[in-house]
Amino acid sequence: MRWRCECQYDGTDFQGWQSQPHGNTLQDYIEGRLAVIFGKKVRIHGSGRTDCGVHARGQVFHFDGEWHHDTEKLRRALHSGLPSGIQITEIHEVDNYFHARFSVKKKRYTYQIYLGHASPFEKRYKWSIGHRTIDLPQMNALAHCLLGEHDFSAFGAFGGDHKDTHPRKTLYQLTFLQDGCDVILATEGNGYLYKMVRTLTATLLEVGLGKIDGNYVLDCFQKGIRREKITTAPPHGLFLDKVFY
Amino acid sequence: MRWRCECQYDGTDFQGWQSQPHGNTLQDYIEGRLAVIFGKKVRIHGSGRTDCGVHARGQVFHFDGEWHHDTEKLRRALHSGLPSGIQITEIHEVDNYFHARFSVKKKRYTYQIYLGHASPFEKRYKWSIGHRTIDLPQMNALAHCLLGEHDFSAFGAFGGDHKDTHPRKTLYQLTFLQDGCDVILATEGNGYLYKMVRTLTATLLEVGLGKIDGNYVLDCFQKGIRREKITTAPPHGLFLDKVFY
Repeated sequence: MRWRCECQYDGTDFQGWQSQPHGNTLQDYIEGRLAVIFGKKVRIHGSGRTDCGVHARGQVFHFDGEWHHDTEKLRRALHSGLPSGIQITEIHEVDNYFHARFSVKKKRYTYQIYLGHASPFEKRYKWSIGHRTIDLPQMNALAHCLLGEHDFSAFGAFGGDHKDTHPRKTLYQLTFLQDGCDVILATEGNGYLYKMVRTLTATLLEVGLGKIDGNYVLDCFQKGIRREKITTAPPHGLFLDKVFY
Repeated sequence: MRWRCECQYDGTDFQGWQSQPHGNTLQDYIEGRLAVIFGKKVRIHGSGRTDCGVHARGQVFHFDGEWHHDTEKLRRALHSGLPSGIQITEIHEVDNYFHARFSVKKKRYTYQIYLGHASPFEKRYKWSIGHRTIDLPQMNALAHCLLGEHDFSAFGAFGGDHKDTHPRKTLYQLTFLQDGCDVILATEGNGYLYKMVRTLTATLLEVGLGKIDGNYVLDCFQKGIRREKITTAPPHGLFLDKVFY
């Protein structure tokens, strides 16, 4: 029996999704709990890794295990033993063809920027860049040029679990929205290179702040080369919002 | 020279406001930072204690110290060395008659309740009580009876720094507001007994849930006796919003 689970987590206090020798990762906690429930090691497969500090409103994973009681009881059993920063929101049985990583059709991320000094209640979830003025239309015009299927090598990074993925990805959405001091990047794509959302965020923001030229970014993008002015935003503003299958 | 400071903090990771032998309190961190800046022990005086886990959007404290540079530089020097859960939002010089605790005219608190299971991003700041239906008009009708100057012994607790305070207090506001699953208690008063806001929250909520009778609460209130059904809400939903002088 295969189970598809959805979870939310505040990534601040975890060492990322992927199991690590020293533990304190989402995978370690969830697998630890499943081992108690099923009485043996149960391996989980996430839709992808999230880095240390990155949050999720809708991460998906699957695992195999025999459970013949009520599904809600399984959700509660799993949920109840986890740290308070993790929440199992949904669980249901799927057929064995489903794979949380390989069956992904699309992912939605958001990145939260704050134009000022975020309060202690928001700073875990927003990148505070101080009081600045940004050219939002210019950022969105440039973002629009990146939509569609392209080689995104200019915005990728080494590392992560994306060693095997091709740099050609399709972006369906890449939009900055502003509401007062809050600026949110919303993006949907069929896949992302390692740290790609955070790199797009920082790079387009630098253009909006007038620190780098839009043509420099387009040139890197078209040539598929990451140059020194292409930077990466910190992890704590990033949310994996939804995985589509 | 006397300085009046305002600060915000996420109380989750601190052992409350008041200095403790093992540290990790707001007072310990702020005094530690001031000792570095002024090169000697500087005692701070808060508007009152907040318990372990209680948050503040507008806590006020004062201290005495000679500083002849720019005030904003003092704010930054103080702020920069503090844990990320504390933010010094304002600082200005006041005359020596000002005392952060004894000059208080009024305080505003809010308590955040969530009728459901709050996400990992909200659960640090909201008391999740599961999916319930509450009788808000009844809660507010009862709350209305508590307005004005009364003996609030029925809703006080032993401990805290309120040993010396009289149980007669004046409440100017005590209102529950609902927006979907969010229920907020907003209150203003010239003073509160130890744990009084949390006790009013839990007790009026119990009435709204139909678990205790409004007349039982009124009877305790009028007799000034705290009985066993008068309970106290957990600290993490409580915010000290503003102190008025």
